[in-house]
Amino acid sequence: MMSACVLYHFAFDPGSRTARLALGEARVEFAETVVRPWEDGCPVAALNPSGMPPVLQVTEAGRALTLCEPAAILGWLEDRSKEPFLMPVDPAERAETRRLTAWFDRRFNDEVNAVLLHERMEKPLLRLGPPEARALRAGREALKAHLTMLEGLLATRDALAGRRISRADMVAAAHLSVLDYFGEVGWAAYPGLKTWYMKLKSRPCFRPLLGDRFPGVQPSAWYHDLDF
Amino acid sequence: MMSACVLYHFAFDPGSRTARLALGEARVEFAETVVRPWEDGCPVAALNPSGMPPVLQVTEAGRALTLCEPAAILGWLEDRSKEPFLMPVDPAERAETRRLTAWFDRRFNDEVNAVLLHERMEKPLLRLGPPEARALRAGREALKAHLTMLEGLLATRDALAGRRISRADMVAAAHLSVLDYFGEVGWAAYPGLKTWYMKLKSRPCFRPLLGDRFPGVQPSAWYHDLDF
Repeated sequence: MMSACVLYHFAFDPGSRTARLALGEARVEFAETVVRPWEDGCPVAALNPSGMPPVLQVTEAGRALTLCEPAAILGWLEDRSKEPFLMPVDPAERAETRRLTAWFDRRFNDEVNAVLLHERMEKPLLRLGPPEARALRAGREALKAHLTMLEGLLATRDALAGRRISRADMVAAAHLSVLDYFGEVGWAAYPGLKTWYMKLKSRPCFRPLLGDRFPGVQPSAWYHDLDF
Repeated sequence: MMSACVLYHFAFDPGSRTARLALGEARVEFAETVVRPWEDGCPVAALNPSGMPPVLQVTEAGRALTLCEPAAILGWLEDRSKEPFLMPVDPAERAETRRLTAWFDRRFNDEVNAVLLHERMEKPLLRLGPPEARALRAGREALKAHLTMLEGLLATRDALAGRRISRADMVAAAHLSVLDYFGEVGWAAYPGLKTWYMKLKSRPCFRPLLGDRFPGVQPSAWYHDLDF
């Protein structure tokens, strides 16, 4: 189906990255409007009641559609796809995909992003002062527990929710890629996870993310290296 | 399809209530195991890595399936249904259903439940002392903003995401019903929302929830009244 798409996103927001990865996987072409949701007059405020990216505006068969939040964008991609899209066929793997997506939405967000990304990313953006050592330590400890959990899953699976790449992998890679930019992921301790991430990073959908730059912070040395 | 189901749930957990409402709507029979996830030895700890209900165990065609988190239970119900299940057909209403589900998962949970249900429900359960007036006030102010937003949606719609009941209504009703038990919803100020809630409350899926009792707290006078 012919459609014109505009994605409103912030490059270092994990939800925005999930949308970009999924759109890339689906080979949907889209124009980009990069937004800074914490600033007055951010255009997303008029589109999404939460005020947050990602928002995808689609014009399809003359009808405009506003898709707010990653769930609506992923759901739309699934609805328009003839084959299962980033969703396994096996019932147990479907359940696992949904469980892990919810895990990142809540647990990973609350325990890692709200602490570690707050210190490393939000504080400089919002000029809230330097990071606090105690919060950094707590966020890094929490991240370790999550990475260990993911390493455990990948000990018996090729992808996070089973045999093939699903939306769980996209969501996880979106989150980890932001932390990786800031050098927060100690890949050496998680060889299974590192192999999984290298495979994801090699997919064409990942390329645009590897070109993102955060003002005043250089990416980790291996951030855009496909074979790190 | 023949299946045997056991739902592990906690009666006053909004996610557990979402699962019970959706199972009721789908007319899936299930056995119940009521759990107290904050206690050592809670059986959910061995089933769901997050340690949290709801978990639905399904045995179908001799195969066991463990569905963790509301998203996996709702998704399974949708997958097995021949008709669209609690999901509109119109693309804009589908997007709105997904947006609102995400809204309750994050915004409502963070701004209302984490404050107001923490004071009214978690503190007595975990013996954390009496509620704090400041937190109660903050939670009640946040709740008002959410109720006003919902009232606004219902000014132009019969159901939250559009013309017909969707999973957004189930999720919203699950959350509001817990707060209503504790007398926290000032329905009189939200006539559209009150009419919507009365309609939902009259559905057979709601009946089991109206019989729930919280130890040491009587429900609000209108909690189980269908015509309040």
